[in-house]
Amino acid sequence: MANNEDVFKKVISHAKEFGFVFPSSEIYDGLSATYDYAQNGVELKNNIKQYWWMAMVQMHENIVGLDAAIFMHPTTWKASGHVDAFNDPLIDNKDSKKRYRADVLVEDHMAKIEAKIQKDVDKGKKRFGDDFDEEQFRATNPNVLRRVAEMDKIREELKRVQEEEDLPGFKALIEDLGIVCPVSGSKNWTEVRQFNLMFGTELGSVAGDAATIYLRPETAQGIFVNYLNVQKTGRMKLPFGIAQIGKAFRNEIVARQFIFRMREFEQMEMQYFIKPGTQMKWYEYWKEERMKWHKALGLGDDNYRFHDHIKLAHYADAAADIEFKYPFGFKELEGIHSRTDFDLGGHEKESGKKLRYFDPETNASYVPYVLETSIGLDRMFLAVLSASFKEEQLEDGSERVVLNIPPALAPVKAAVLPLVKKDGLPEKAREIIDTLKFDHNCQYEEKDSIGKRYRRQDAIGTPYCITVDHQTLEDNTVTIRERDSMEQERVAIADLERIIGDRVSMKKLLV
Amino acid sequence: MANNEDVFKKVISHAKEFGFVFPSSEIYDGLSATYDYAQNGVELKNNIKQYWWMAMVQMHENIVGLDAAIFMHPTTWKASGHVDAFNDPLIDNKDSKKRYRADVLVEDHMAKIEAKIQKDVDKGKKRFGDDFDEEQFRATNPNVLRRVAEMDKIREELKRVQEEEDLPGFKALIEDLGIVCPVSGSKNWTEVRQFNLMFGTELGSVAGDAATIYLRPETAQGIFVNYLNVQKTGRMKLPFGIAQIGKAFRNEIVARQFIFRMREFEQMEMQYFIKPGTQMKWYEYWKEERMKWHKALGLGDDNYRFHDHIKLAHYADAAADIEFKYPFGFKELEGIHSRTDFDLGGHEKESGKKLRYFDPETNASYVPYVLETSIGLDRMFLAVLSASFKEEQLEDGSERVVLNIPPALAPVKAAVLPLVKKDGLPEKAREIIDTLKFDHNCQYEEKDSIGKRYRRQDAIGTPYCITVDHQTLEDNTVTIRERDSMEQERVAIADLERIIGDRVSMKKLLV
Repeated sequence: MANNEDVFKKVISHAKEFGFVFPSSEIYDGLSATYDYAQNGVELKNNIKQYWWMAMVQMHENIVGLDAAIFMHPTTWKASGHVDAFNDPLIDNKDSKKRYRADVLVEDHMAKIEAKIQKDVDKGKKRFGDDFDEEQFRATNPNVLRRVAEMDKIREELKRVQEEEDLPGFKALIEDLGIVCPVSGSKNWTEVRQFNLMFGTELGSVAGDAATIYLRPETAQGIFVNYLNVQKTGRMKLPFGIAQIGKAFRNEIVARQFIFRMREFEQMEMQYFIKPGTQMKWYEYWKEERMKWHKALGLGDDNYRFHDHIKLAHYADAAADIEFKYPFGFKELEGIHSRTDFDLGGHEKESGKKLRYFDPETNASYVPYVLETSIGLDRMFLAVLSASFKEEQLEDGSERVVLNIPPALAPVKAAVLPLVKKDGLPEKAREIIDTLKFDHNCQYEEKDSIGKRYRRQDAIGTPYCITVDHQTLEDNTVTIRERDSMEQERVAIADLERIIGDRVSMKKLLV
Repeated sequence: MANNEDVFKKVISHAKEFGFVFPSSEIYDGLSATYDYAQNGVELKNNIKQYWWMAMVQMHENIVGLDAAIFMHPTTWKASGHVDAFNDPLIDNKDSKKRYRADVLVEDHMAKIEAKIQKDVDKGKKRFGDDFDEEQFRATNPNVLRRVAEMDKIREELKRVQEEEDLPGFKALIEDLGIVCPVSGSKNWTEVRQFNLMFGTELGSVAGDAATIYLRPETAQGIFVNYLNVQKTGRMKLPFGIAQIGKAFRNEIVARQFIFRMREFEQMEMQYFIKPGTQMKWYEYWKEERMKWHKALGLGDDNYRFHDHIKLAHYADAAADIEFKYPFGFKELEGIHSRTDFDLGGHEKESGKKLRYFDPETNASYVPYVLETSIGLDRMFLAVLSASFKEEQLEDGSERVVLNIPPALAPVKAAVLPLVKKDGLPEKAREIIDTLKFDHNCQYEEKDSIGKRYRRQDAIGTPYCITVDHQTLEDNTVTIRERDSMEQERVAIADLERIIGDRVSMKKLLV
């Protein structure tokens, strides 16, 4: 794990050094858990968006797009349950005046016990050497057994206070465990209170007309409130989907792991409206479809797995995550949720308006069920970036850092490099760019040796470097150097458009 | 003007009826001045974004992209001047408790005087018939002259109180003009106060750590705080540009004219970093470039004009708008501003960090000047939509509504229509879609007569309708019906990809 943490740190620093992700407002020492996508990052992000939009909207006759505003009528969040139930349990230490998430305090405490168990195990390993049987040791060592039992008890009680929203019980748990404030070291705690995760702001400056509205905590509701307008104006028949990419905001107290958990983040969501009773069919269908979409990128099939939810959210009757193997372990990348009629039903109730679909096949009206697929765009970005990051030892003994980003997603598709800065080679290189740039994001580089330039392009994941040399002036050919194999081939300039176009094509991934 | 207002209303209702723009949260009776982009609207909007991004980033070797977060460190807005000076003057009526923008009250009053002048002119026109010389009438009629003089005086005083921020003088002006509250009819006014237009929200739930932050009122500052990071990691040399598309938020008291002025809106901005002293050259260059970009769309050259600012914003030493002829008159679509070193200088001061560029040519360090081009994406959308909206009388006496959106921007590029719902024509149509959909957003429609289907595609601006008929089954040809001319041609299916691809190409606009 230490090694992977190390990799994660390298990815973060590479992201900054090579123009993928900058800490936000860095000249003001940054804003906690907020990041900006830099010149290469924005291209990668846009390419991911395009890959998703093409797969979901363009390729499906019965899925259309939407771009709802971040601001919505506040009653939306009453209907969705967010006003009442979108909370984190918080507790303050009276001495340090620091505030913590109550569940995180307990989890951190459990992590310490876990560390102690590990220490016991390590000791055993040291003592017994090659003969050490960890499984047996864990099953018999009295210290370990006592600690595991302690962990189980804590885990059970944590689950209980969370599920029952037993706030005094939550506080009692923290006190019973003797948890101290990491800053003051004291056990002088306030009550545990619920804190709503939505950001509020005041809309309108007209007296008597000002209203508290929320920055949407999820994009899904923008789809639900519009579903009937889309269905009618788009003459859609069930099943049909509405897809949306957009920002959402959550006032997380613990925002961490780089861009994995931010307070401002972007979602790519599709809500699929279906006939009640067909949800399990579509649940299985979309699980498979979405997994296929991820794996088509070629980041490695072993990096993905399903995680079926045992405990379901209040709105779901089936739910699974597609988890990705980040440097910090398998974590949720995308969720596939069978949301039933929870949302549309809630909006019917709050708005007093009928949100029924008239089914021409059965002549019946009903509230459709909803099957949701929801990816965190920033998480997808981090998945691509961290899986692509490679430190390689080369044959000549030197090292290189390369991002082997799938060519269709790479920020720059081709770098055009004159071998030297004279003899008309720069002009020839620019001529080539002038034919390629209509279709692809290209870069021109003439500074430093060709080797150094290859390294720089490797570091931002450019799949093809096109080198213009003196032979080019004679026979109108260039070399194409492929990023991953580093192999070079000589091709005619006239063929470049077709060759590059074909190799970086996003369409190929969609077949 | 009455006629144009009428057109504007038709555009708005068309936008809703055909899935371009919906009022936000409509099931909750909407949220004031907030709109959602519907299934066709989102495609048009995405195409506009792509056209801009291609022209600015992809086509320019020295312009790169960025996607900064909406949340920024609050000191950013101190440095930019928004905390101190981004205000609207507001006044309350004590009887109705309604709040108004003081300048709008005065402008509405002036509009009434203007209407009276028009009435005088209309009377004269009626009296003198064909002999009426409006210019001479305006120059000599005592009533008109008196009212024009009155207007001049008000305009001058309004300008003075605004420039000097003379709030008591502002109130005195309103009282002197005898302006009454449109709701209560009373003159019982409060003082005029300044109201900041930024939306605030509380970041973080950690006690003692919570900070008021703002939703950015412009995207530009996200570029300025990152400029040095981009310059260094991207190895950029002056002049270079950073382009960004993103949301911004202003708590406008008067939000109106559909999507023209919203509280949540989207900007497409490019900041061009240049050597001080070269700003007038680049100002002229970008004025011309941007105008060319607009006109290439073919919406009509007469729809555009420059408006040079006489009164300059505090940060500018030259500024012009590209105005578009909306149904409600010529209004700002894009701004080209020479911002000097105002912003970077402000950030140097507030952050205490050096934001200098080292110029390898002169071996000197300096704060670059900035030339900005800034379009309202929603305004651009409205420009395309309203200029494209046509009600046409056809030769057979029937009528049609058509959106002649530039093909490269059209939401749906091609509709594939089986002439009848049998004989294998639907299957053939879907085969065709399956080859086109990788490159284009296509639609399949089989319901209703072919004429009705053409009308529906006209109404959403689909440039090409491809009809599959019985002959198709024999010789693998189809008809392509062009939206504007309504002409049909018979072509081989094998040629469709090339023909459609060529005609809807965005690249053509960029040459």
